[in-house]
Order: sequence, then C-alpha cells, then structure tokens
Amino acid sequence: MVKIAIMGHGTVGSGVVEVLTTHVSSITKRANEEIRIQYILDLRDFPDSPLADRFTKSFDVILNDPEILVVVEVMGGLHPAYDYVKQCLESGKSVVTSNKELVAAKGAELLRIAQEKNVNFLFEASVGGGIPIIRPMSQCLAANDVIEVAGILNGTTNFILTKMINEDMSFEDALALAQKLGYAERNPAADIEGHDACRKICILASLAYGKHVYPDQVHTEGITNITLSDVKYADAWGGVIKLIGQVSKTSDGRLQSIVCPMLIPRDSQLANVDDVFNGIMVRGDATGDVVFYGKGAGKLPTASAVVADVIDCVKHLKARKYLFWEDGSKEYVADYLDNEVAMYIRFKAANPDELCRAAEKEFGEITRLLRRDAEPDEAAIITPVLAEREIRAKLPALEAQGAEILNTIRLSDF
Amino acid sequence: MVKIAIMGHGTVGSGVVEVLTTHVSSITKRANEEIRIQYILDLRDFPDSPLADRFTKSFDVILNDPEILVVVEVMGGLHPAYDYVKQCLESGKSVVTSNKELVAAKGAELLRIAQEKNVNFLFEASVGGGIPIIRPMSQCLAANDVIEVAGILNGTTNFILTKMINEDMSFEDALALAQKLGYAERNPAADIEGHDACRKICILASLAYGKHVYPDQVHTEGITNITLSDVKYADAWGGVIKLIGQVSKTSDGRLQSIVCPMLIPRDSQLANVDDVFNGIMVRGDATGDVVFYGKGAGKLPTASAVVADVIDCVKHLKARKYLFWEDGSKEYVADYLDNEVAMYIRFKAANPDELCRAAEKEFGEITRLLRRDAEPDEAAIITPVLAEREIRAKLPALEAQGAEILNTIRLSDF
Repeated sequence: MVKIAIMGHGTVGSGVVEVLTTHVSSITKRANEEIRIQYILDLRDFPDSPLADRFTKSFDVILNDPEILVVVEVMGGLHPAYDYVKQCLESGKSVVTSNKELVAAKGAELLRIAQEKNVNFLFEASVGGGIPIIRPMSQCLAANDVIEVAGILNGTTNFILTKMINEDMSFEDALALAQKLGYAERNPAADIEGHDACRKICILASLAYGKHVYPDQVHTEGITNITLSDVKYADAWGGVIKLIGQVSKTSDGRLQSIVCPMLIPRDSQLANVDDVFNGIMVRGDATGDVVFYGKGAGKLPTASAVVADVIDCVKHLKARKYLFWEDGSKEYVADYLDNEVAMYIRFKAANPDELCRAAEKEFGEITRLLRRDAEPDEAAIITPVLAEREIRAKLPALEAQGAEILNTIRLSDF
Repeated sequence: MVKIAIMGHGTVGSGVVEVLTTHVSSITKRANEEIRIQYILDLRDFPDSPLADRFTKSFDVILNDPEILVVVEVMGGLHPAYDYVKQCLESGKSVVTSNKELVAAKGAELLRIAQEKNVNFLFEASVGGGIPIIRPMSQCLAANDVIEVAGILNGTTNFILTKMINEDMSFEDALALAQKLGYAERNPAADIEGHDACRKICILASLAYGKHVYPDQVHTEGITNITLSDVKYADAWGGVIKLIGQVSKTSDGRLQSIVCPMLIPRDSQLANVDDVFNGIMVRGDATGDVVFYGKGAGKLPTASAVVADVIDCVKHLKARKYLFWEDGSKEYVADYLDNEVAMYIRFKAANPDELCRAAEKEFGEITRLLRRDAEPDEAAIITPVLAEREIRAKLPALEAQGAEILNTIRLSDF
C-alpha cells in the first residue's frame, strides 16, 4: 500500500478523491499497489465527506509523515503551493500537480530538486486537462525534432470565439454567457487576456525544447479586441479566429513563442476545435503533424490526468521518469517582432479603396477581403509574409493617409 | 552503450535506421545511453548502406549474441516474425515491433512471455503509425473506464473515401489513384476489405479492456460496396462515410466490436479526418472524448514510433513497463447482430414511395433521405435504433414487396 496526501479540496481536488475512490480495483491493478488517501489538506471543514477523518489544516503533518511518498498539489496559485511543493520534493516525496501557474513559473527549479532527490515531479494535468499531452510529447515524440507546437489551450476563450463565429454573438454577450455557464470566472482576465494560455505554452515549449521558457518572455495578446467584424472577414478569407499559443525554433537555435488570436484556414485540424475543447498540434520532423483533442478543463478530466500521474509515481517510486528541462535564459526567446508572418489588418478610412491602393504600394501586394454588410468606411487586407517589425513600420504611412487601424491579427502557418 | 538488432530492412526498417542515425545526440540524451545498431537482419544485400558491415542473413547470430538487449522486428507478416520474436523474448531480449498482424494474432502470448522473462514487448507503431496511442491509452487513461474506442485506422481506405466524398471520384478510380501514389498495394485486399483496420482495433480493444480480442472475433466489412450514391445520400443526411473500427463494453461485461463503413455526422471530430490521416477517439468516463490525429502510416512517422519504443526499452531495461493483457476467450466478444444501431438502407424499387411507406410500417418510423440527381427507382432511408438482428429480419418483408436492397450502412454513435 502506498499512502498519499492531497493538498487542496476544490474542484480538481475533490475530483481526484472521486476518481481514486470510484476506480479502486482498476487503479490498484494498474499501479500494482493499493493507493490510500491518508491526508487531505484544506483550510475549510468537510464534515459530510466520507473521508472527513483524513482532513487536516496543517501542512507540517503531511511533510513530517515519512510514510507519505506521493503528494498531490491541486491548490492552484503560486503561494503557498510553491513553498509546499518545494518542501515535499526536498524531503524526498514525489509530487503531482495540476497547477500550470506553478509549473510555468518554477518548473525548472522543481524538476532539478526532484532529480537531486531521485523523486518524480509530474504535471500531466497542467496542460490540456484530460488530454494526454505531456507524456506523449516527452516519450512518444522522443525520436523527433519538434518543429513547432501550436494549440488552442484555453477553453473559456475558445467557447467565446465559437459563439461569436457560429452564433454571431458579440464578445460581451459571449463572455456573459460563459460566466453564466461557469466556464469563465467572475474576473475573467487570466483567460481572456491570454495569461492562462501563456502559462501552458511555456510548459509545452520548455518540454519540447529542453529549456525553461518563462511567461514574461512570451508576447501575449488576448481576445478582448476581437469583434464580429473580424470574425466575418475571417470567414470571407476562408477561416476562423482562434486564440493560439505557439512555439517554434528559429534557425539560430532560439525560440519564437507567442500567444495571440490567429486567422486559421478552415481545413486546419485546429479550425474545428470548438466550444470549451482544446486541441494541440505537435509538428515533428518525422511524425509530421500530430493533433491531440479533448476537454481541456473540468473537474473529472483534470482529475483523471492527476490520478494517472499518481499511478505513474507509484509505479516508479524507485525508477525516476526522465521528465526534465534546464533553466532558461534571457536571450533564449527571440523578439516576436522578428518573426515572419502574414498579417490581417482592418482599418477605417474615408475612402477605403484609395487606402487599399496605398497599402498595396507599401506592402508590394495585398489581398483585400470583401464581406457582405461591411461598413462603407471599413476595409480589411492581408499583407504578404514579412518580419512583423517591417509590417508595423509601414502602418504609420497608412495612418498618415487617413487610415484608422482598427485591428491587426496574425495568420497561422498551420 | 546498449546494442540493438533490427530485423527487416524494408520501408519501416530503413526508416528506423535513418531516425536512429540522424538524431543520435537527442536520442542518446533521452535514453541516457548511446544506442548502437549492431545487426540488421535481411535476406537481401545492401552493399551501399553506410551500415553495410552490420547486415546479417542469420537470425541465430542475433539470438545468440548476449550483448543484444533490444530487438526491433519490422519484417511484417506472421512468419517467421512470430517465431523470431518469441525466441528473442524467451532468451531475455526486449522486443519492439510495428507488426500489427503479429500483435493482433499473438499479443497475449508474447506479453506473457515478456512478463515471465521480465523484459519488455512494445508496439506503439502497430496502431496509428506516428500517432502516440498505445502509451497514452495504457498510461494516461489509467484512471478512466474506457466506454468506447472508435477510429479511422486505415489511411488507404480513408484516402479512397475522401476522394469519393470531395471529388466525386468512383471507388475504382480512387483505388487506382491510391495505387498510383503508393498508398495502396497492388493487391489492396488487406486494406479495402478492412482486415488491416480489424487488426488495429483488436490491439486497441485488448489494451483498453485487458483481454485479447482476436481478428476472427470481430465482424469486418470493407469499403468495396460503397458507391457515389451512398456518399451523396450521406451528404444529404449531414455527414460522411468513413471506415471505422469500433469497440465498446456491453452491460454484461462482454465486448461489442466491429469494423465497417459508418455514417458519421459532420460535426463529429472524426468526420474531418481526411486523406491518408488516421484519427482515434477514446471515450473515457472521466475524460470524455479524447481524439488523437496524425499520419497513420509512412516510413518516418512509423519509424519514429518504433524508435520511441526503443528509447523506452533502453530506459527500462530493469524496470518492466506494465503493458499487459490476458488471453482472450471465445464468448468474450458478443454477436454484432445483438448490437443496437440505426441503419441506412438504400434500395431500388419500381415505386420507391410505396416501398418507403412499407418500410415505415415495418420500422415504426423512418427518415427518408432525398438528394439531387437520384435515380427515379432508388431511395434511401434511416431506421430507428434497433438490434441489428431485428433490422435484418425486416428486410425480407421489403424485398417481398419488390425492394432490391442495394446497401446497408450503420450509423455511428459519435
């Protein structure tokens, strides 16, 4: 029997208890050991829980019990999660977490401690909820060079964009609906401003390329600027707008990484990832494009990923998993303005036709998008592929000729 | 350094050599060991290969070299692959294979020998080519009860159906094109009659439910009966026809498993899996639907999956992976005629309207599909969900009234 502790009894934590207690026989068989929940750490009381006697308010009880070999951290947030996880690893306990904020901010440090102590630090649930992605990326794609990772990593924003695309709903109405359905928090900033997706692409980038990428190194834009007009122009172009987290290697060995809304062609495998679902594409030099799709959040999907990690920890108490990346460095991620992209530009002008001709002169060639019911003073164009810095440098010339730039959205390369 | 042998130097075998020799540093890092190809077994000569000195025509050289710890079997076919693999495992060597025929026919036996000898028998490449599916299913979904697995498992037939659906090509023309492009063999029976997909669903079913399912236990239909008329009626219904391998658990603990063309609604995640791509849906009680998508065949994708297994073997020379299933039994798979499905039925009749009314009487209620350019003596209907046995029992009554049944296609439940 292996005794474990669960820190946090919120949505995911109670889900972990549910999965562990409802699948006892199959989990025992797969782990080759019975798994017993010895402690549940929470500041609240749960007198009606069948495990009421296991609750504790004291982290030290868990830390100081040498029989606890695996600790599950599902509290979320950086503090005190970071301090608790660090102490657990340092005292030789394996840790499983679903906490993307923790892994994105402190992954390299915690992986190093785990390595020194010969224990495991696993976090399958931190990206993609119930979708297996960390393990397939670290193991199955071991024989590939990863050319690019791109994904729809946040279910809340994908739900909002899907409502805008399929039901003509405004951003504000779609957000309100997402909040009503419990998909968005009352303060939705972490989702709609892209920070949640940023943490996840940092984790995937660190894993894919072996060196930590920190959230403040990734240029991050949310979806708050996306309007129904953009959605309709995207449709005219032949695609949809999705919030994408992306990372790829540049020719000089550095990374390009960004989180932003992108125009995706309709035949891309990510274009059909709708509602609260996530989809993650891994482009390998040998495998080609592999896509993982499923529910990126939710109590039971996330909990089942946590429990799969717990089972893996129990199976590997003496054999460490080779999940590891080095610490990052300041110059590791290149300036996003150096990246070469094609750009969608929507603008307002007294004479849009004239401005389109001016844009053509600036960019060499452009594609103008036309759509039904467009405002007469509005136009949208697609630029050729250029360094983003060059594209941005040309905008003042258009503004000088009377264009008011309303939005710019990058085109995907998948 | 770990020395390995590769049996077979065909498409996949030469791909394995290519991946191992072009990714030396990253593979060494991930395996924590240098991997050396000591022998390549092939009856042909390859004097121009940079590894020409490693070739051997004698299996015994490999078997009797105690330094060989991992053997890769990429010869294909049952014999002599089965005998070689068995002898390797019995002599304490781990084996990695891409051979779906071997795993589908002999998996339980070979896994048992591997367990007895405390070595690994891995076969990630046997299903889905470069798509990670065996490992995610056995590990990440460990905390789920698998409700159903359904997949587009054969790229050749999917290419043919895609050409029929998107380009109005006849089955015969699409097959000829597939052969011309090298997607289909000169004798395409294993693909178009569903046997290849059958082997793959057997492997996934065995893994998902822990007990071997043998190919002759799975009712298998290919795509040779699918016509452009069916494809167009499917479009009128709101979906596409795909060759699906499916398995699910029945309420009495047995399995339902089938390989056949199915009508899939357009918003299903499998409906957009086109051309030679594969897509596999795993429906878990906790995760919900998870879909894996990518190239299901081809030299480098398959080779990279083989190499990932080799790396895993090298990392786990002393710690066995818990990949296992029991032997099967005759009664384990239920009769497909007991399964409840809705059925598409296309028929010919002098007076189709009258026959549709007769069908309505037989089935209680039906949906009639109407499409442009249909033959005047042809009609297509969808039955309610009934045991397939019941549906088939009603067909003679329609035939007695003058209907000539041209095709029947099951509807998917995903």
